[in-house]
Amino acid sequence: MTHTEAQQAHLPRTLTRDLAAHDGQQVRLQGFVHARRDLGGVQFVVLRDVSGLTQCVGSGLSLPLAESSVEIVGTVKAHPKAPGGFEVQIADFRVISAAVEPAPVEIPKMEWNVNPETMLDYRVVTVRGLKERAALKVQAELVAAFRDHLGTEGFTEISTPKIVSAGAEGGANLFPIDYFGRPAYLAQSPQLYKQIMVGVFERVYEVAPVYRAEEHATSRHLNEYLSLDVEMGFIEDEEDVMALENRLLAAIMERLKERCAPEFALLGATIPEVPTHIPRITLMDARQLVTDQFGHAVGGKDLDPEAERLLCQHYAETHGSDFVFVTKYPRAARPFYAHPDANADGTPSQELTRGFDLLFRGIEITSGGQRIHDHAMLMDSIAAYKLSPESLAGYTEVFKYGMPPHGGFAIGAERLTAKLLGIANVRYARAFPRDRHRLTP
Amino acid sequence: MTHTEAQQAHLPRTLTRDLAAHDGQQVRLQGFVHARRDLGGVQFVVLRDVSGLTQCVGSGLSLPLAESSVEIVGTVKAHPKAPGGFEVQIADFRVISAAVEPAPVEIPKMEWNVNPETMLDYRVVTVRGLKERAALKVQAELVAAFRDHLGTEGFTEISTPKIVSAGAEGGANLFPIDYFGRPAYLAQSPQLYKQIMVGVFERVYEVAPVYRAEEHATSRHLNEYLSLDVEMGFIEDEEDVMALENRLLAAIMERLKERCAPEFALLGATIPEVPTHIPRITLMDARQLVTDQFGHAVGGKDLDPEAERLLCQHYAETHGSDFVFVTKYPRAARPFYAHPDANADGTPSQELTRGFDLLFRGIEITSGGQRIHDHAMLMDSIAAYKLSPESLAGYTEVFKYGMPPHGGFAIGAERLTAKLLGIANVRYARAFPRDRHRLTP
Repeated sequence: MTHTEAQQAHLPRTLTRDLAAHDGQQVRLQGFVHARRDLGGVQFVVLRDVSGLTQCVGSGLSLPLAESSVEIVGTVKAHPKAPGGFEVQIADFRVISAAVEPAPVEIPKMEWNVNPETMLDYRVVTVRGLKERAALKVQAELVAAFRDHLGTEGFTEISTPKIVSAGAEGGANLFPIDYFGRPAYLAQSPQLYKQIMVGVFERVYEVAPVYRAEEHATSRHLNEYLSLDVEMGFIEDEEDVMALENRLLAAIMERLKERCAPEFALLGATIPEVPTHIPRITLMDARQLVTDQFGHAVGGKDLDPEAERLLCQHYAETHGSDFVFVTKYPRAARPFYAHPDANADGTPSQELTRGFDLLFRGIEITSGGQRIHDHAMLMDSIAAYKLSPESLAGYTEVFKYGMPPHGGFAIGAERLTAKLLGIANVRYARAFPRDRHRLTP
Repeated sequence: MTHTEAQQAHLPRTLTRDLAAHDGQQVRLQGFVHARRDLGGVQFVVLRDVSGLTQCVGSGLSLPLAESSVEIVGTVKAHPKAPGGFEVQIADFRVISAAVEPAPVEIPKMEWNVNPETMLDYRVVTVRGLKERAALKVQAELVAAFRDHLGTEGFTEISTPKIVSAGAEGGANLFPIDYFGRPAYLAQSPQLYKQIMVGVFERVYEVAPVYRAEEHATSRHLNEYLSLDVEMGFIEDEEDVMALENRLLAAIMERLKERCAPEFALLGATIPEVPTHIPRITLMDARQLVTDQFGHAVGGKDLDPEAERLLCQHYAETHGSDFVFVTKYPRAARPFYAHPDANADGTPSQELTRGFDLLFRGIEITSGGQRIHDHAMLMDSIAAYKLSPESLAGYTEVFKYGMPPHGGFAIGAERLTAKLLGIANVRYARAFPRDRHRLTP
């Protein structure tokens, strides 16, 4: 080993984002060849590591294919035109692992709107793209903020089964599993389990995949997605749950501002302000509003996608809010466990529930509400929904034992990520999406 | 509303663990009736909330069934014989939600070794038991410490598909899914995906369920469990991975000491010391050691459960360590992606890998190692293992594009929790376990 090699071997690795602190010094970098250019006497390598890009310049190098992983030892020099303001002058260039084929697409030149299916076919390597990585990084921070904030409010994390004997919301849209020769299904929600766990920890959350065997292909649905689930006991009514979600979203956006400014900048997106009190409107009033203000007649019992978009436009314009709660959903648009709203005389409403949605930038990102905790009321509701009490017996059992008033909500992590970053198709907010036709990679 | 009612309505809720700060004051408590006793003129209620138990005493009360959720307003009085040292003298007692039947088992009197199947049958309510809750609380803290520590070392959280087209380790032990009429499987590990993501974030982790369709019923296996998965790029060899796991375990135990002392005390368990350098022994030497020291002849290519137990006994006695790494597993005991060890001349070994296990208190809690990153070596290995290159093509593709040397490991969260707490059957370290016969609750 030469003197220089010995020095280099002891040189700790520097990340590209930390170059400014090493101006004029020798550093050791590791990463992937993001781009390269050979001008004969001079070679340029753009090195990509987890923290960013660095332009490196050398001579007499034999450059490997792009995406090869390499180690570079060199001197940091301020260079106004280089990305990040610094360049590394290469003293030693070592290929750690050479790419054996050119990548099927050039990573620095990928565009999401060109051949989206091809991009997903080659996802094992296209996921290295800067925008792809930024989206997944933002999602990781968003999920971490979700957990951390709930921890400060006394919530406990739980892990519930994804293999279930029946669906939480009836039998539709379930993927069947062969469980040792018995029929079983992939859970479409941890709903029933998180309610049960309110009896243990009072306030719980879960971050885990859920499954919807929906055949439609839209830009807003995934067949497998990451659900951020919350359930809270000893509440007065659904207002406690909405207030919690309001605080939670504020904490999430705060963390994204602290940690993900470069990712938002790269994607040309802005982090929303969360109002101290997110505006709310009942579903009935919301349907009326989009008809009156925009002339849009809403079909069905809920809001259609166009109505969601118009309602958000209205609240952005009139309240400066990217968020709006839509409350008091009718029973016809909610599952059997939704708690009825109270009539003026205090009796349970036959029509309305304490269920709500949260809309963000034109789309629903949350369904939530207060749940039925009274056993007799729950059995009545199961009958009214024409569901089988037997198939739900494992669930309803717990309501015999003093379940307190409780409610919660679920946020689809990919959908929130996509709307935050202006990603048109939710599949790009998941590393390896599953859709009607896509089982690989 | 009377003056007293108005006062009470504005009284914030106090948790039972905070009573000492309110000695002599009026507090409002909420929780479940853990136990109750009616002595005619005087009634005792043990209130259970998320933070502990409080003895409350009153008179003239009509007590609801155990497990009812209730609200108590009363005065805190120091009382040496009460659990926690304080008692609440009830001024106002309100049933929030009455149990409509006695619980199938008395929650305060449950024992894990009596009728374990019955306890799991009634898990929706038995999970409220203090020991059950303690186990799940410890697991939640353990998982949080896992994430937090990896965050400090620059790891990024990922979310990978659980619906896959083929198994990571061949075709055995997979649960089949009907995916829109196509065959698919539940992932037995995020192995291949976490490796791919090393190309994106260099260092990644995932906390998610994994699935093993193993028919055997043992006290150490679950068919669905929470896997704590780690993968780390730009390593020298598996020593970097073991060093990471060593630091990680130290951080986890540190957090458990800070936050879970009451739970360990309740279960009569002690939090292990993690040596600065966990002792290590090669598999060959370990087999020899248990034969020489204990006269136990080890069958197969690996360690059998008795050998694991004896090896741990040896290291506890001779090194004072509850942990030991077993290294250099033979290829015959490892999957195709395990990186071969190097012969003395630097060529790849045909027999040994850079795979390791970590044993803890008599049982394996981790499998890990360096993985093959070189495309040609990987294809050779797939051929040597007689696997289908076609079925693995989606995976091997990424190794054409400069994957750096990398390795990682996985920890089964329930198994580690069980061993930490001295829980004999791993099913009690999961809220709703799945086994060969158990699909509900």
